[in-house]
Amino acid sequence: MDLSKVSQIDVRKGMLVADLVKEMSGSGVMGAGKLAHAVDIAEIAIKDPNTVLFFGIAGAMVPGGMKKIMIDMLEAGWIDVFVTTGANLTHDLVEALGYHHYQGRADVSDAELHKKGLDRIYNSFMPNNVYEGMEDFFEKHWDELSKDKMNIKEFLWKLGSLMPKDKPSILRICYEKKIPIFCPAISDSGIGLMVWGRIAQGKKISVDAFDDLKDILDIAWDDKKKFAVWYCGGGVPKNFIQQAMQFAPRSAEFGIQITMDRPEPGGSSGAELREGISWGKMSEKGNFVDVICDVTIALPIIVAALKTRLK
Amino acid sequence: MDLSKVSQIDVRKGMLVADLVKEMSGSGVMGAGKLAHAVDIAEIAIKDPNTVLFFGIAGAMVPGGMKKIMIDMLEAGWIDVFVTTGANLTHDLVEALGYHHYQGRADVSDAELHKKGLDRIYNSFMPNNVYEGMEDFFEKHWDELSKDKMNIKEFLWKLGSLMPKDKPSILRICYEKKIPIFCPAISDSGIGLMVWGRIAQGKKISVDAFDDLKDILDIAWDDKKKFAVWYCGGGVPKNFIQQAMQFAPRSAEFGIQITMDRPEPGGSSGAELREGISWGKMSEKGNFVDVICDVTIALPIIVAALKTRLK
Amino acid sequence: MDLSKVSQIDVRKGMLVADLVKEMSGSGVMGAGKLAHAVDIAEIAIKDPNTVLFFGIAGAMVPGGMKKIMIDMLEAGWIDVFVTTGANLTHDLVEALGYHHYQGRADVSDAELHKKGLDRIYNSFMPNNVYEGMEDFFEKHWDELSKDKMNIKEFLWKLGSLMPKDKPSILRICYEKKIPIFCPAISDSGIGLMVWGRIAQGKKISVDAFDDLKDILDIAWDDKKKFAVWYCGGGVPKNFIQQAMQFAPRSAEFGIQITMDRPEPGGSSGAELREGISWGKMSEKGNFVDVICDVTIALPIIVAALKTRLK
Amino acid sequence: MDLSKVSQIDVRKGMLVADLVKEMSGSGVMGAGKLAHAVDIAEIAIKDPNTVLFFGIAGAMVPGGMKKIMIDMLEAGWIDVFVTTGANLTHDLVEALGYHHYQGRADVSDAELHKKGLDRIYNSFMPNNVYEGMEDFFEKHWDELSKDKMNIKEFLWKLGSLMPKDKPSILRICYEKKIPIFCPAISDSGIGLMVWGRIAQGKKISVDAFDDLKDILDIAWDDKKKFAVWYCGGGVPKNFIQQAMQFAPRSAEFGIQITMDRPEPGGSSGAELREGISWGKMSEKGNFVDVICDVTIALPIIVAALKTRLK
Repeated sequence: MDLSKVSQIDVRKGMLVADLVKEMSGSGVMGAGKLAHAVDIAEIAIKDPNTVLFFGIAGAMVPGGMKKIMIDMLEAGWIDVFVTTGANLTHDLVEALGYHHYQGRADVSDAELHKKGLDRIYNSFMPNNVYEGMEDFFEKHWDELSKDKMNIKEFLWKLGSLMPKDKPSILRICYEKKIPIFCPAISDSGIGLMVWGRIAQGKKISVDAFDDLKDILDIAWDDKKKFAVWYCGGGVPKNFIQQAMQFAPRSAEFGIQITMDRPEPGGSSGAELREGISWGKMSEKGNFVDVICDVTIALPIIVAALKTRLK
Repeated sequence: MDLSKVSQIDVRKGMLVADLVKEMSGSGVMGAGKLAHAVDIAEIAIKDPNTVLFFGIAGAMVPGGMKKIMIDMLEAGWIDVFVTTGANLTHDLVEALGYHHYQGRADVSDAELHKKGLDRIYNSFMPNNVYEGMEDFFEKHWDELSKDKMNIKEFLWKLGSLMPKDKPSILRICYEKKIPIFCPAISDSGIGLMVWGRIAQGKKISVDAFDDLKDILDIAWDDKKKFAVWYCGGGVPKNFIQQAMQFAPRSAEFGIQITMDRPEPGGSSGAELREGISWGKMSEKGNFVDVICDVTIALPIIVAALKTRLK
Repeated sequence: MDLSKVSQIDVRKGMLVADLVKEMSGSGVMGAGKLAHAVDIAEIAIKDPNTVLFFGIAGAMVPGGMKKIMIDMLEAGWIDVFVTTGANLTHDLVEALGYHHYQGRADVSDAELHKKGLDRIYNSFMPNNVYEGMEDFFEKHWDELSKDKMNIKEFLWKLGSLMPKDKPSILRICYEKKIPIFCPAISDSGIGLMVWGRIAQGKKISVDAFDDLKDILDIAWDDKKKFAVWYCGGGVPKNFIQQAMQFAPRSAEFGIQITMDRPEPGGSSGAELREGISWGKMSEKGNFVDVICDVTIALPIIVAALKTRLK
Repeated sequence: MDLSKVSQIDVRKGMLVADLVKEMSGSGVMGAGKLAHAVDIAEIAIKDPNTVLFFGIAGAMVPGGMKKIMIDMLEAGWIDVFVTTGANLTHDLVEALGYHHYQGRADVSDAELHKKGLDRIYNSFMPNNVYEGMEDFFEKHWDELSKDKMNIKEFLWKLGSLMPKDKPSILRICYEKKIPIFCPAISDSGIGLMVWGRIAQGKKISVDAFDDLKDILDIAWDDKKKFAVWYCGGGVPKNFIQQAMQFAPRSAEFGIQITMDRPEPGGSSGAELREGISWGKMSEKGNFVDVICDVTIALPIIVAALKTRLK
């Protein structure tokens, strides 16, 4: 075994994030070493024009302050396929409509918050009146939104086309740059509820539950490409990409997973990336890493280091 | 503050699960006290004919040995609404088609497993050839499966109607007992892939992505009922029920959550039930508990105690 | 690979804990399979008169309702060497002096509790006036306690000899049965504070910090014995036993670890048992299992099953 | 409730760590907000000459690449009292003697590592021959080390005085700057084993187990000072400081905790800092934060930001 020494991390006054990550890379161990490894993998995958990057993100990432980072990544062309949860897109819509999330606390009286009309997401709060704003938005744009038969990706692009241009949003940037955006459980979200509200009034919309599979699997089916997967949290976004990799002619060669979930209870969210080798989702010669960290800590560091490193 | 003493748990030779749970209830603290609390809540909710129990379950529960328990709970009429993941139903289908899951290990070479055609789910294995069996099944039954326009619940009932009668399955029991079964992200599963396989051959099926919302919200809309929620794991099943509770005239009065996820990263899966009070999903006077435990340990204990306690 | 099928756990009315564990053993997977595996290992180790069982337990186990279980295990002769934290022994002393712990909640105002003189340990409370009772006890027994030069084990046996006979305690049973009891960080506890209180008054006591190593290593040095380790939680108790195994002529052949800590941050508490193979602490042919579970849930189940299985 | 908006984190090319932390502070939520809060608290506590900072650190921090950071913090005078584990000091000694830790992997054969003489600490390795080097060191310096009756702090300073000057070490810097260093469970470590090795040869040493309490409590007893606590990991280092705070005339006004442990199982390591309010360990008006993160990720960021911010 040819082993590198653990070099003790040297932290300096006025240090760049990119240089701190280089120090972490030198240490090579524990969480710091893995975080640095994730930056290396992302850099290779993004630089290679032949690598398709599937980015899956779950969790309350907009109330968690990650919206601009996601938009930047989409805008810079780092992400080729974006898969997320309905909640994530609902919070994106909420901010695009001019509402805000607020800094709160977790050790509060939830009954008090309820009286004040504040919905808690761990230590952030969302004013409950966003639902009224969303109602108005869907009411106003319903005819446009519902006029065609669609799959979910097309529905989300349509939604993106209706977003205000002055407030950057995930939905708008995906629409503008025609980045495929998948959200299999879209009905499980505030956006879903808004659609249900119209249906309950007798209005119609036709969005197919299975049709997006064709779109994502067509992308994965390309045997001239290499594939990279990058997961922030688990849930449907991770699993939906993993199953595309299972049926791709070439399994994923690059992989980053940032999660706080554990593997032992057996769920997909906490599963180590290497488990995907057995399924043919990940390449056995692949370069991948599991970073056990809160996404709101790890993602800004990784992206700050990447922005500095990439031309 | 009127406080009960912690009574030291007394464990005896030949002890019933139900009696162990009673001892845990006497201790009243840490994980044991919470587990016992969950049994108390479930007992009240199940006994009350006026309480509708929404049961959400995520994770690899069939490979984890929980299938019979789920079927028993459905058969006994404990569960009024069943919400799960596509993976859970795919594993259910796999066993109904005569395949098995196998006892494995996590510290193995995934590359070796891949060569042997074994897909790893933490420490259980599934033979990869189940996909062939599923292909045959969908090929054979496609006309029946695809003939009507449906929502996902109707699609799953249809699937259940086609399951062999001699091999008890979740899908079949939900169909037979007409228990509403929801799986918003059904496309994110082996079942989804089978449907895609047919679509890729030019076949048609029409399953609506939003239409199930009407069904679940109609159930939650009943202002003569009380509501109980019971979550094993998080993900879409939990969130889909929680959002139904948000728009129910009466928020949930009973709640059980069994999870290994943490609240601090801010995702829905790890969120404490009390957070739902702020949203109007959980009643501020509700009786609920978060059990931080592996579902495959906690659920059998809870169900064994309930079977003994309930007439 | 010769694989066993996952058999679906069958839970029945009036079921014994021992029979539930048998069902979990049949499933063989996830947390349930590991819990059942732990019972099997413990049964073999306890039955074999030639196997020395080192039991390490950390965490607030007396406020968590585990005291009687620990006493039963000591009384039944299952445990040959007991290693624990000062906190655990302090809570044991507190109850032996006639005080109680109380069932509380975690989502409370800690400032309110402070005003009421209640010290919180997650969701259990301890009245702060226990410190007065301990003061009186140490004041009364100081001459006896401090008269000899001792190591920590001898100090704890002495303390045990002074415990009331009518209130079973860990300290008393270890003294009575001459079970070696180790607590390297005894100064880090209420008991330590009581000793400091006397020292601050100018009184003397002479307890050596290193001398216990001789006692525990003498036990581990016996090359005619086999060794079993059983950890509930990590911390010093686990590590102190592991280091004894490192220098034993035969590394541990049986091992059980029950913990909620993770391996990835690199600390000893969350380390998988198999890591000990590299150090020569665990035998590479050993039979061991890591159960990721709250001790207050797992330990009562394991002990109930063992009591039923063992003659 | 007067609430601040969550501002979306803006990450830029060539960004300083200190500026990234400022962005995290603006977001104010989830893990990122807490990490930034920790920097704010540390800055106030370090700048205030009247505040005594107790720093407790557990876990394999030297093999994890954190040694230089700890030494820098001690050297800069940020830390007034240092409390750690025996393992941490043993790894420090090992590197001071010229040995290294190595970058490894966790998914390896531990039996192979054992054959190669490599001891695994999650994904770092330590060559087993360090024990020979330590033997030689203790043999050579025994007379000097053992000549006086001591408490553990004095023993560690003595050890520090014997460390090579050309290889910076925690032990040496604490000795040189006369920073009180506590390690209640010193016998539970490689250093402990070395002492035992000499005792087993009939040599003598007299180190008192309780005597350090006087030293740490004298520091905490100063009613003209304010107190800050900073924990990296839990275990004895955290608990030993917390108990000093319990008996201090003024409970701690500043607190930082970085941990991956959970509160629910009830142990001290995972307990939220606010629990300390009930005990009188933390001030109810204190400024404190729990950062749920791998120390090897969080600590370098915090220290890099602090170095930039502090003159």
